[in-house]
Amino acid sequence: MSEPSTPLDRDGGDPVLGAVRQALDAGLAGHRASLERLVRIPSVSAPGFDAAEVRRSAEAVRDLLAASGLEHARLLETDGAHPAVYADWLHAQDAPTVLLYAHHDVQPPGDPSAWSSPPFEPVERNGRLYGRGSADDKAGVCVHVAAVAAWLAARGALPVNVKVFVEGEEETGSANLPAFVAAYADDLRADLMVITDSANWKVGVPAITYLLRGLVDAEVSVRGLDHALHSGLFGGPVPDPLAGLTKLLAALTDEHGRIAVPGFADDVREPTPAERARLDALSFDEATFRAEAGLLDGVELVGDPAAHPLERLWMRPTATIIGIDAPGVEESSNTLVPAARARISVRLAPGQDPLRARAALCDWLQGHAPWGLHVEVTPGAAAHAFVADLDHPVFAAAERALAAAYGHPVVYTGVGGTIPMIEPLSQAFGDAPALLTGVEDPDTRAHGIDESLHLGDWRNACLAEAYLFSELAELER
Amino acid sequence: MSEPSTPLDRDGGDPVLGAVRQALDAGLAGHRASLERLVRIPSVSAPGFDAAEVRRSAEAVRDLLAASGLEHARLLETDGAHPAVYADWLHAQDAPTVLLYAHHDVQPPGDPSAWSSPPFEPVERNGRLYGRGSADDKAGVCVHVAAVAAWLAARGALPVNVKVFVEGEEETGSANLPAFVAAYADDLRADLMVITDSANWKVGVPAITYLLRGLVDAEVSVRGLDHALHSGLFGGPVPDPLAGLTKLLAALTDEHGRIAVPGFADDVREPTPAERARLDALSFDEATFRAEAGLLDGVELVGDPAAHPLERLWMRPTATIIGIDAPGVEESSNTLVPAARARISVRLAPGQDPLRARAALCDWLQGHAPWGLHVEVTPGAAAHAFVADLDHPVFAAAERALAAAYGHPVVYTGVGGTIPMIEPLSQAFGDAPALLTGVEDPDTRAHGIDESLHLGDWRNACLAEAYLFSELAELER
Repeated sequence: MSEPSTPLDRDGGDPVLGAVRQALDAGLAGHRASLERLVRIPSVSAPGFDAAEVRRSAEAVRDLLAASGLEHARLLETDGAHPAVYADWLHAQDAPTVLLYAHHDVQPPGDPSAWSSPPFEPVERNGRLYGRGSADDKAGVCVHVAAVAAWLAARGALPVNVKVFVEGEEETGSANLPAFVAAYADDLRADLMVITDSANWKVGVPAITYLLRGLVDAEVSVRGLDHALHSGLFGGPVPDPLAGLTKLLAALTDEHGRIAVPGFADDVREPTPAERARLDALSFDEATFRAEAGLLDGVELVGDPAAHPLERLWMRPTATIIGIDAPGVEESSNTLVPAARARISVRLAPGQDPLRARAALCDWLQGHAPWGLHVEVTPGAAAHAFVADLDHPVFAAAERALAAAYGHPVVYTGVGGTIPMIEPLSQAFGDAPALLTGVEDPDTRAHGIDESLHLGDWRNACLAEAYLFSELAELER
Repeated sequence: MSEPSTPLDRDGGDPVLGAVRQALDAGLAGHRASLERLVRIPSVSAPGFDAAEVRRSAEAVRDLLAASGLEHARLLETDGAHPAVYADWLHAQDAPTVLLYAHHDVQPPGDPSAWSSPPFEPVERNGRLYGRGSADDKAGVCVHVAAVAAWLAARGALPVNVKVFVEGEEETGSANLPAFVAAYADDLRADLMVITDSANWKVGVPAITYLLRGLVDAEVSVRGLDHALHSGLFGGPVPDPLAGLTKLLAALTDEHGRIAVPGFADDVREPTPAERARLDALSFDEATFRAEAGLLDGVELVGDPAAHPLERLWMRPTATIIGIDAPGVEESSNTLVPAARARISVRLAPGQDPLRARAALCDWLQGHAPWGLHVEVTPGAAAHAFVADLDHPVFAAAERALAAAYGHPVVYTGVGGTIPMIEPLSQAFGDAPALLTGVEDPDTRAHGIDESLHLGDWRNACLAEAYLFSELAELER
């Protein structure tokens, strides 16, 4: 299935790596079947979806890890949290211990009828596997499984110790993170983390992600009336709570779409010279970016006009209105609604304190609805941005492994998204480095309709991780 | 059921009116049962609801009119329209012909689970009948039926000629009005119209409504992307179409909630001295109004601060955002939506040209979305405001009939709502006067959750219409 090994696989004639590569390719059809089984489980961790499916997904991941030859496979439970999954293989004496991270929960599918094929029925088209979670991040789960299984099949052992940790509520901002870290940091402790939940620069061009934005979110409800009113019989002197909500939301951003909350961005730092050089080294092409984003003709890029678009994307905060509770247009009647509600998701720049940012957002929302409308703000997630320390030798090791597997040099990129678990785990392990790679590409549409995985790059990602184990075994503990 | 006749019924000892009143009260239980039968039919005329139910409702009304002793009961069909119903009794020689108007379609119920009892299962609580359409306007249909039936039972004849006309798409702004009037104005022609679709000033205080606002509406969609995007992976340089929609909607009104479209209100006229005197004569109490509207503590009244609140309610335009298509808060994910849509309903002041107003609204919406977002505007309904000519003797006649039935003098009020059918029919009949009364009261919650009818006032409204027939028979043709 997928792509055969090619001359681009630069295992350099090393017989061990050659055997691992052959074992990996021999096992790939089975891993693809496992991935499809996982995609069929609608493990949406968002509120309002069936939590039993997330548990079913956790159990399926546990069984998959156990079948791959990992040991101690089990669910990690936390009060109120969707279960995570753990397994390990710890028989590589004097070798480093690597925590392999992915997550098995997924985003809501949106309108299933908008998908080209049902979101939870994986289908291959044009070398891509379509389905919710096919890339983000069930593909990451299967990368770890494939890399481990290849070594065990080829050599009966791994060159490093591994702990596999598959989270179950990444897509809800890892809401129970503090309790989780308190409960399991000792079990998960490792010398470094490999996070397989990010994106390549483009198909065939492997990337190490060294910047992630942070995340805060909040719900805001605006209420003016204790019951709905006929808009003709009361409209005019009675304020429209839905209009009040739109005024509040509209004022949250300025004419460039930047967050307009005073002081909100005070702790955003400038890019360092090295970061600026890495931004400039990337061949950002606005036309390509517009095409990847699907921007319609004439729609402008927004954000600080003085900043490079990639800086706006990776190193500046931004707000998105991700939900509004209001009557739908088709079923609307001439009615003043008593209340309306919205959810706002804000990405944070490196340097921003998420608790400070969330408080600033919530305080501003609380204070800026018009007409004396009552406001209720519910703070949501809060996660730090991530900046890798690229001086650590793991990055040179990863560059070699990725370049060998993809047959293409690595680029260093940022990603505007967030992985809340990285920062507290890294801290709990004494600032262990985190290597962030992944299988997404600009066409993946993670979180969107028709999410898909490029199967060729997925195989390369599996091989790169298998090569990486060998590279990491050479590092100083 | 309901209330017995009381000494407040001032039929002045007239034996004919006394007999009519007794017949009315004797028949009232049956008419209430008919009303409940109509309420059980979910005749929602809005798009997206089952048009077959509106037809079933029309057929039930037709059968009810026929059973009350009216003749020629039939549906009036128009291309694409929900059917109206017609019946008549035309045997009063040398007496005027009165068109009795009501409508049998209803607003969508909103969230049925928010109702205290299911919206289409009529239930009496504390002297009120709850259910969608129990007041607006199936009660109006049954007022006509009860008044006609009382005369026929008591006297075997009516003192005037009547044509009963029950519309089927009033709640959607009478979208097929021009075709309808062209097809049926000759059949419906009358010397005057009695429109039973309005409200009393309060329970027990009958009102003649002499002002109605007009109505225009429009849908606007804002689109920036050809597919949904992960808000982290693209947010910042990529504009948020939902934020763009909120900016467009927010700018539609100023800080007082007034329509901010330049020139929109240029054709609004000032109240005449007589209108100003009628406004001042009403005992408007802000605390009572706030309680009736269900305004929460501290929520401000909006609109022109220099205008009387009733002037803002009846004689000024106002915009309401009645629907937004966006992901709901509970099912929201960290996603930039490709597009978002809203529906805006605007009430017009006396004097405003609805086609001019609709064009001004649509042009403004088309031109004011930020960031080059694509805008599509779909114009909707357009209906004139209504101002009665109170010099016509029908109003003095109606004052006498209403005061006798309710035992309380009449007040002249405006209503901020709209009945699109009045103006074109009145024009088609050579400016026939329209007498506008009704059975709603400030607690009715027409269009809202828990709509209800005050059963005592409904009986008084039936009696008033029966008395009115006698008064109208005395008028000069």
